Amino acid sequence: MTTNVDAAPTRAPQQDRSRATRQRLLEAAIECLAELGWTGSTVAVVAERAGVTRGALQHHFPTREDLFTAAIEHVADERIAFLRGRQAALPAHGPARTEAVVDLLVRMYMDQSFKAALHLWVAAATEEPLRERVVALENRVGREAHRTAVAFLGVDEHASGTREAVQATLDMARGLGLANLLTDDSARRARVVRRWSAILDAALAEG
Amino acid sequence: MTTNVDAAPTRAPQQDRSRATRQRLLEAAIECLAELGWTGSTVAVVAERAGVTRGALQHHFPTREDLFTAAIEHVADERIAFLRGRQAALPAHGPARTEAVVDLLVRMYMDQSFKAALHLWVAAATEEPLRERVVALENRVGREAHRTAVAFLGVDEHASGTREAVQATLDMARGLGLANLLTDDSARRARVVRRWSAILDAALAEG
Repeated sequence: MTTNVDAAPTRAPQQDRSRATRQRLLEAAIECLAELGWTGSTVAVVAERAGVTRGALQHHFPTREDLFTAAIEHVADERIAFLRGRQAALPAHGPARTEAVVDLLVRMYMDQSFKAALHLWVAAATEEPLRERVVALENRVGREAHRTAVAFLGVDEHASGTREAVQATLDMARGLGLANLLTDDSARRARVVRRWSAILDAALAEG
Repeated sequence: MTTNVDAAPTRAPQQDRSRATRQRLLEAAIECLAELGWTGSTVAVVAERAGVTRGALQHHFPTREDLFTAAIEHVADERIAFLRGRQAALPAHGPARTEAVVDLLVRMYMDQSFKAALHLWVAAATEEPLRERVVALENRVGREAHRTAVAFLGVDEHASGTREAVQATLDMARGLGLANLLTDDSARRARVVRRWSAILDAALAEG
């Protein structure tokens, strides 16, 4: 008993340090992937950027696939949490709400972490061990995004055509993310988002 | 004069052979890019697949960037030509035509050449000399796709909101192409295309 009580205060800081190291590794992995692509993002490069040894990295993430799928999953979870945090600030209903929701959904595909995810997806297309992991991750993240979109739009998913209209919106958002990869597409994107929001709002109101 | 007349019959087959070699190289470049990704698609790998020497490849395409941007441009042009060839077979007007057009547009992003283009785009995000080339190519191909979509839908691009509705459709098509990269997304895609087509048709009719 005495041992446990004595051990507790020293174990806690160790756990904090371990968590902080893990967090730094995940962030470094995303930065490397977005800036250097898959080929340039070796385990050694990520460890160096995070300021940890390769051994410490491998303690947290035994394989390169573990590291990068965990990193993408981590930012996807953060993104969904960020979205949920914005729910209270949305207009209560009507076309203004629909436009605010579409705008928020589209933003999910515009940041550095979408660029990182794109590098991982494309690498997974030609690397078999990675593909399986990324497909599972994509399914989970896709379901989460869909669920959030349905909740934010305040629609009944079982109404005819609603599910597909929401999915089409997320597909468009993904396409806009791809269009933003090499150039700043923000001016065109703002017009497309405004127009699609009006079209979607009318379609969802009709059911 | 006599020399020119004599030379003509031998020069023509040489030109044919050169054109055939160029064509084989372009096709091999697309296949390699789609199957092996950017990193795996070296000039040597493409030359071997096309059955030509590296010297012959470099005669046609001095740099790796020349080869791959020419290949993507070539299939983009072929795709647009294919689309235009289908115009006569489309339903004359109404929702059936809109759905047939959206379906055709979406198909542009489902084949091996879109996968190849995706590898090139993502590589261009982290490789400076490639980026500039790919941005110019993307602009040209994007304008062509937009023009074809407007013509096929039979809409007036200057009517309020029409341009953005067509662009949203192409963005959605691009997003569907990305969703199809790692898994067969055809069943879900068919439902999304049907729903999007109905929504778009109503929106375009309203103007």
